[in-house]
Amino acid sequence: MKKLELLEKKLKYKFKNQNLLIHALTHKSFKKPYSNERLEFLGDAVLDLVVGEFLFHKFKNDAEGDLSKLRAALVNEKSFAKIALSLDLGTFIFMSASEENNGGRSKPSLLSDALEALIGAVHLESGFETAKEIALFLIQKNYPNIDAKNLIKDYKTKLQEITQSKMGQTPEYETLRAFGPDHQKQFEIALKLEGKEYSRATAKSKKEAQQMAAKIALEKLEVL
Amino acid sequence: MKKLELLEKKLKYKFKNQNLLIHALTHKSFKKPYSNERLEFLGDAVLDLVVGEFLFHKFKNDAEGDLSKLRAALVNEKSFAKIALSLDLGTFIFMSASEENNGGRSKPSLLSDALEALIGAVHLESGFETAKEIALFLIQKNYPNIDAKNLIKDYKTKLQEITQSKMGQTPEYETLRAFGPDHQKQFEIALKLEGKEYSRATAKSKKEAQQMAAKIALEKLEVL
Repeated sequence: MKKLELLEKKLKYKFKNQNLLIHALTHKSFKKPYSNERLEFLGDAVLDLVVGEFLFHKFKNDAEGDLSKLRAALVNEKSFAKIALSLDLGTFIFMSASEENNGGRSKPSLLSDALEALIGAVHLESGFETAKEIALFLIQKNYPNIDAKNLIKDYKTKLQEITQSKMGQTPEYETLRAFGPDHQKQFEIALKLEGKEYSRATAKSKKEAQQMAAKIALEKLEVL
Repeated sequence: MKKLELLEKKLKYKFKNQNLLIHALTHKSFKKPYSNERLEFLGDAVLDLVVGEFLFHKFKNDAEGDLSKLRAALVNEKSFAKIALSLDLGTFIFMSASEENNGGRSKPSLLSDALEALIGAVHLESGFETAKEIALFLIQKNYPNIDAKNLIKDYKTKLQEITQSKMGQTPEYETLRAFGPDHQKQFEIALKLEGKEYSRATAKSKKEAQQMAAKIALEKLEVL
């Protein structure tokens, strides 16, 4: 077990109540009268709001349905486990020997739960704004590219991954036409799979139109 | 359309930005470049955290799974619509004539969405603590009996409602035994349906044991 001060340094936060920190790091297997499950419940809601608010401000023109999808891409066990790993959180968790022997210190669910519990604990003793600051610092450090372009870029990448693994196909993009006055040029793009048009989109740049066509294709494939 | 000041009085909150208030009250049918859907997304997360935190403090000994269930009983369209009705919120919502003719001003989904959007708007301009204060004031005014006893009492009531409507049966409670020293008396209760034992529980009082047996029965019936 490493010294908890090390973890506090990484979080850039000093717990006023050290018992609360220990509480947040205690897995139920440790067989104490307390475990981090209730704090995890609280932290889960804190993180939902932190990320929801972050996306609300970042993507001012996106519909609420898109915000929900973006949030789901960030608020999940996998991404929280990644953040937890960056803090080396597994080495700080109190767990039973058998859980430890079972690989507990690197289990995504355990790591993600402890991260949520930590954020819940900060919210509890220092309020939402402080918890938000720490959560955003951790999220942005691990996901530095959460910006509109990158999340949009994901559509093409994501589609290609799926079509390659499921159909052995790479999507092709064909520019059908460019139209409109020079200062308001529009591009219409067709996305083809196995040589046949699968979706189509129009935007101010070819790149953007490709991304939109990929997004439509992902929706058709019911993976978005 | 009533004057918005009236609504602000009911909320005990004066919006700094009146446009934000209008935004929160604008249903998408109103065909403006904006609607309250994004604010609803934000408010939904605010309310989840507000209620989660409230229950966390109120039920200090309940497991995280029970907290989730309690939250689900409070954070839903039906209860938010009830709160919205208490504010007469329907009369303040901007909506299309056809939505209005369609009963929009009293639609639970529309009312609940507008309430969430209002709370989201307060969070946006005045922060979480202010939004929390308003939300808790509204929730406690409409659900004055959110306390452990009452929520536990709900198990018996809920079970009876279900067994009466589905089986035409009323659960019966039989005290099987009382045991233990006087200062630590325990009561074992059997819950019977159609004369047969359906669940059993032990607690420090008959009442509590009955509630626990009802809870177990609800879980067996898969309604909890």
